[in-house]
Parts: sequence; structure tokens; C-alpha cells
Amino acid sequence: MLKWYEETVPDGDVVISSRVRLARNLENYKFSPLLEEQDAKKLVEEVKSITPILSEQDNRKYYACNIQSLSDIDKTAMVERHILSPLLAEKEQTTGLILSEDETVSIMINEEDHIRIQAIVGGMNLEKAYEIANRIDDIAYEKLKFAYDEKYGYMTSCPTNTGTGMRASCMVFLPALSAARMIQKLFEEVGRYDVTIRGIYGEGTRSLGNIYQISNQKTLGNSEQEIIENLKRIVYQVMQQERKRREYMLSLNSDEIEDQVYRAYGILKYAKQITSEDAMMYLSQLKFGADCGLIKFNREFNIHKMMMGVQPGSLQWTLGKSVGSAIRDKARAEYISKELPDLI
Amino acid sequence: MLKWYEETVPDGDVVISSRVRLARNLENYKFSPLLEEQDAKKLVEEVKSITPILSEQDNRKYYACNIQSLSDIDKTAMVERHILSPLLAEKEQTTGLILSEDETVSIMINEEDHIRIQAIVGGMNLEKAYEIANRIDDIAYEKLKFAYDEKYGYMTSCPTNTGTGMRASCMVFLPALSAARMIQKLFEEVGRYDVTIRGIYGEGTRSLGNIYQISNQKTLGNSEQEIIENLKRIVYQVMQQERKRREYMLSLNSDEIEDQVYRAYGILKYAKQITSEDAMMYLSQLKFGADCGLIKFNREFNIHKMMMGVQPGSLQWTLGKSVGSAIRDKARAEYISKELPDLI
Repeated sequence: MLKWYEETVPDGDVVISSRVRLARNLENYKFSPLLEEQDAKKLVEEVKSITPILSEQDNRKYYACNIQSLSDIDKTAMVERHILSPLLAEKEQTTGLILSEDETVSIMINEEDHIRIQAIVGGMNLEKAYEIANRIDDIAYEKLKFAYDEKYGYMTSCPTNTGTGMRASCMVFLPALSAARMIQKLFEEVGRYDVTIRGIYGEGTRSLGNIYQISNQKTLGNSEQEIIENLKRIVYQVMQQERKRREYMLSLNSDEIEDQVYRAYGILKYAKQITSEDAMMYLSQLKFGADCGLIKFNREFNIHKMMMGVQPGSLQWTLGKSVGSAIRDKARAEYISKELPDLI
Repeated sequence: MLKWYEETVPDGDVVISSRVRLARNLENYKFSPLLEEQDAKKLVEEVKSITPILSEQDNRKYYACNIQSLSDIDKTAMVERHILSPLLAEKEQTTGLILSEDETVSIMINEEDHIRIQAIVGGMNLEKAYEIANRIDDIAYEKLKFAYDEKYGYMTSCPTNTGTGMRASCMVFLPALSAARMIQKLFEEVGRYDVTIRGIYGEGTRSLGNIYQISNQKTLGNSEQEIIENLKRIVYQVMQQERKRREYMLSLNSDEIEDQVYRAYGILKYAKQITSEDAMMYLSQLKFGADCGLIKFNREFNIHKMMMGVQPGSLQWTLGKSVGSAIRDKARAEYISKELPDLI
């Protein structure tokens, strides 16, 4: 079964993935931050018990585990792939995870809320992500009693999530807007529409590989459909701006950009050691070149998958062991050189 | 017949070539700077007339021409390959050239002196260069009457050349001393021994590709053998310093250097446009890596020949036409990518 990031996707030149997350809490437990360890254990077991039902009723295979049973490398790799939140990976209390084989659905147990159902799909497809998350929510609801208020909607541990309990987001690739230093302006613009942008694979608003996340801020006062429509509208606007800027850049300096793309390929192909920052930068240039048709590979090549693969956790996960940064830099260069396709 | 720069040579990791130049003047003409055009013509014809004798008595084929008959591209390419001096290429009066097929010997006619005999050989081999220049001098002397003073030796247009009329030089490759910023100190040190160092393929002391020229300053008061011995001693010392520094660098950062060498290869292989400065820098890194055994090619590959080939004149000479710098940068990238061997 292909993972979501292994499929070709709509609008993949700008939108890498669409994600919907639903926060839910069970009536008969205190909110997670107030939970005693013995209740946490009970909660995790109760939620995990729906796994066979999910496998039965949703069209994919599901696995469940306690986070504490995972190695540090597993956890880091899962955070990098957005399966786990950093909070869940670090929490000391008993916590759990239900994950679909294709990594489309993950259900975090005893994170900030009792349950966080997340569905992630490739490309620009918020409806599909919502549809999946909603279906999982329905299946779970059959077995678990969710805390729901007629007036406020789903009760959540943090009031900013109350209402729909939904956060929708798109992971977007903005090399042209980044190069033009237009990201800061974009941050300010979209802020006016209840939407935030932040850098991903990086700290705060700093971005690695020119990848950003755009998500809704408000969960209360709008329906799920309204939230998705609003976010979709913004993402489409950003997409148009990015595409326009790419065209403009190409019309100005296509030779220079082509040269940069090919040099990035040459460096990725031959480097003997490379940091994740450098790898992300050159992979970003390569993706840009491939999206613009400036460079062509002799086989299907998923650059975003490689962007995840070069992250420290994923890399160590592939190596099967924890290693220091110098060895990681060499292993990363070797991995890239081996996986990178030839050109035509 | 192989050109001198196509042969494998002694100490070629540091010394690219050894060169000896003899300045001679004919008795029955005024010095070149004072020469009337009609006498210049006569002089050029008289000197050119020895060409068949050279072909006969020296073991290689010789050609003669007037510089004015060469195209600008030819002239630039010949200056880059040290066949012509920039002065001769630009001089408006009638000037001439006798050149051996393997480009080892060139005789410039009506440069600063009536005749400048130059012999250039690959690697560290000043004796051989001198032996060749001396033989040509002997052959020429049979036909042409040189101005010679018992006390001062050979009379030259500029007094700094009087005496032996000889300038000996070595072209040296100093990437490690350059990286360690030890070149300036070296300039000062060798200055004390009647020897100068200057950058080559660059202006003043600025160097492209970390290539420098070390030459004797004094022509008067020492015999040819003494001049050569003195220069040889200095060049050997520089060679040792460079080699020691390379070892030291490798002992500190061999991984980093290896990575830099391979990245240079990747960039040279895939760039779509490249300036001569950039090309020289990456070729210098590649030569360093090859000299240290860090990178291995699947066939004989003469990096210094490519360093000459990427120069603007040589490049246009290969293209067969004069082109602007943007087109040159693309042609240079294509030439490098095509000529660069694969790795093993």
C-alpha cells in the first residue's frame, strides 16, 4: 500500500499536503492536563480498543501502540512525518497512537486532548482530508462518549480548540515567494483572514526548504465546511501568488535558475557529507526546477519524500540506529546520492 | 605530437610548468621601442627566415607568422597559453612569432627585445627548459648577429634584462598555502632571494585557480646555471611547504576536503553556465583532490589543460567565433561537462 506522500497529487507544485485534525475528549475522564497516571492508562486502553473496528469499517489497516514503547528514533521520525506531535513524543504520562498503514490517519491519545484524529492527504485536497477525519470521528463516536455541549460544540482542553475542535492546514512549498522575500508580507496579509502561516521543519517562522504551513485559527463560530472553504480560498490565493512569482522569476532569469537547479542536483549527487539544512535547500531548488520542467528525471521521483528522508530522525530510522551528527551528515549524503535518479 | 601540457610530468602536483625565456637583440637594428615600422618589417622577416633551419636542426616542426595576421581570438588564446606575451599581442607595429608544433618553443619577434626565445616544459624541469632554449639560441646565433658585450653580456632593450637576458620561472599550484592565507608571507619571504611570485590568470598578485608564477629577478651578475639553481632551490622549498600544508589540512579535515572536492566535481559536471573565475576555483579544488588521491577519474584527465581551455580566449577559439560573456559562460559549462571524465 502506498503511503500518502508516495502518490502523485493535485497542485503538488505548491501544496504538498492537506491535513485536518479533530480534537475530541471523552466525557468520563478529566481533561488530559489534569489526568492521573492510572486514568491515563485506562483512557489509552479504552481508545486503543477501537482499532479493530477502524480496520473493519475504514478501508485500511490500523495499528495501535503506546508511545512509551517506541524508541527515540521512531518518535523523532514520526514527528518529522507529522504522525506524532512533538508534545506527544515528549510526554511522560502514558500516551497512545493508532496509525493507519498508509500513514493517512493517526489518532493521538492523551495529547493535549484525549483524542486527536488527524487525516493527511497529498496535494491540495482539504475536502478529502476532512472526509476521512470525519469518517474516523463517526466510527470512534460509536464506541466512545465524546464531551459535547449544545451551545459550544466539542469541549476541548484548551478553549482555542472548542467548537468544531478542528484545525485544517496545508503544507505549501513557496520557493519563489521566499526568494523574493515576500513571505513576511504574506504572513501579515493572511493573518487578517483568521489564518496563520508558519515555517515547517524549522523553528518559529523560520523555514527549511521553503516549506510553510497555513492553518485556520478559529474553531468556534464557524462550521467545519466554512473553516475549510475559508482556508481553501486563502491557500488558492497563496498558490496563485507563488505561481505568478515563479513565472516572473523564470521570465527574468530562467538561465540562472536552470543553472542553480542543475548545480543543486550536482551537489546532491556528489556531496560526501551534507547537513539537513543544506540538503533541504538543494532539494527545494531541485523541486522548484522539476515543478517548472527545467530538469527531468529518468523515473518517478518524489522530492518531498526525500525531504522527509533527510531529516535526522528518518535518517537514523533508515540506518536502524542512533548516530552523531557527523556520521548522520555522511549517511545523509550517501542516502541522497543513492536515491537520486539520473537525468534525461 | 603531444603538446607540453598534455604529458604527465614530474612534481606535477605542485609545479605545473617550468619556463625559460632568453632576450636577444640583433646588432644591426635599433632596440624595438625605437624601431621604425620599415625596419620592424625587415627585422621580422629576417628572424622568421630561420624557421626552416629550426625545423631541420631541432627535433620538432616550426611555424612562423606575423602577429597581425592572427585574429583577436587567436591572440587571446595564445596569451592564455603563454605562447604570446600580452605586450606582443597588443603591439601595433609589425611583430612576428615562430612556434613549435608542440608549443614548447615560441620565439617572439619585435616584442620589448628583437627576439624572445621561450621554452616551456611540464612539471618541475627548469634544466630541460633551459637546455631547449639554449639549443634554439645556438641555432639562431648561427644566422643572426646578436648584440653582446664582453663586460655586460647580452644587450637588452630594458637594462633589467641585460646580462644573461634570461628569465626562468615556474608555474606553481598552491591551493593549501592559499587556503591557509600564507601566500602573502611567501611573497615576502622569497623576495629576499631575488625571486618574485605573482598570481597568474589574474591581475597583479591576485590569482585564479590558486596558480602562481615564481621567477628570477636578476639577470646580471649570475650565470644561467646559477640563476636556475637559485630558482630551483626556492621552488623546491615552496613545493615542500605546499605539500606539508596539504598533509596538515588533510589530517585536520579530510572529510570536509573530500566533500568539497566531490561537490566541485558535481557543480562542474552539472552547471549550465559558469564564469571563468568559478570554473578555475572548482577546477583548482578538483586538481587538489586528484593530486591527493581523494577522487579518481576513469581515464587520464589533464586538469591544467582544462584550466587553459576554460579561459575566454581558448573557449572562443574552440567555438571558432567571438561571443559575449553570457554565451561564453554557457559554452564553458557545456565544454567542461563534456570533457570531464566519469569517476571510479
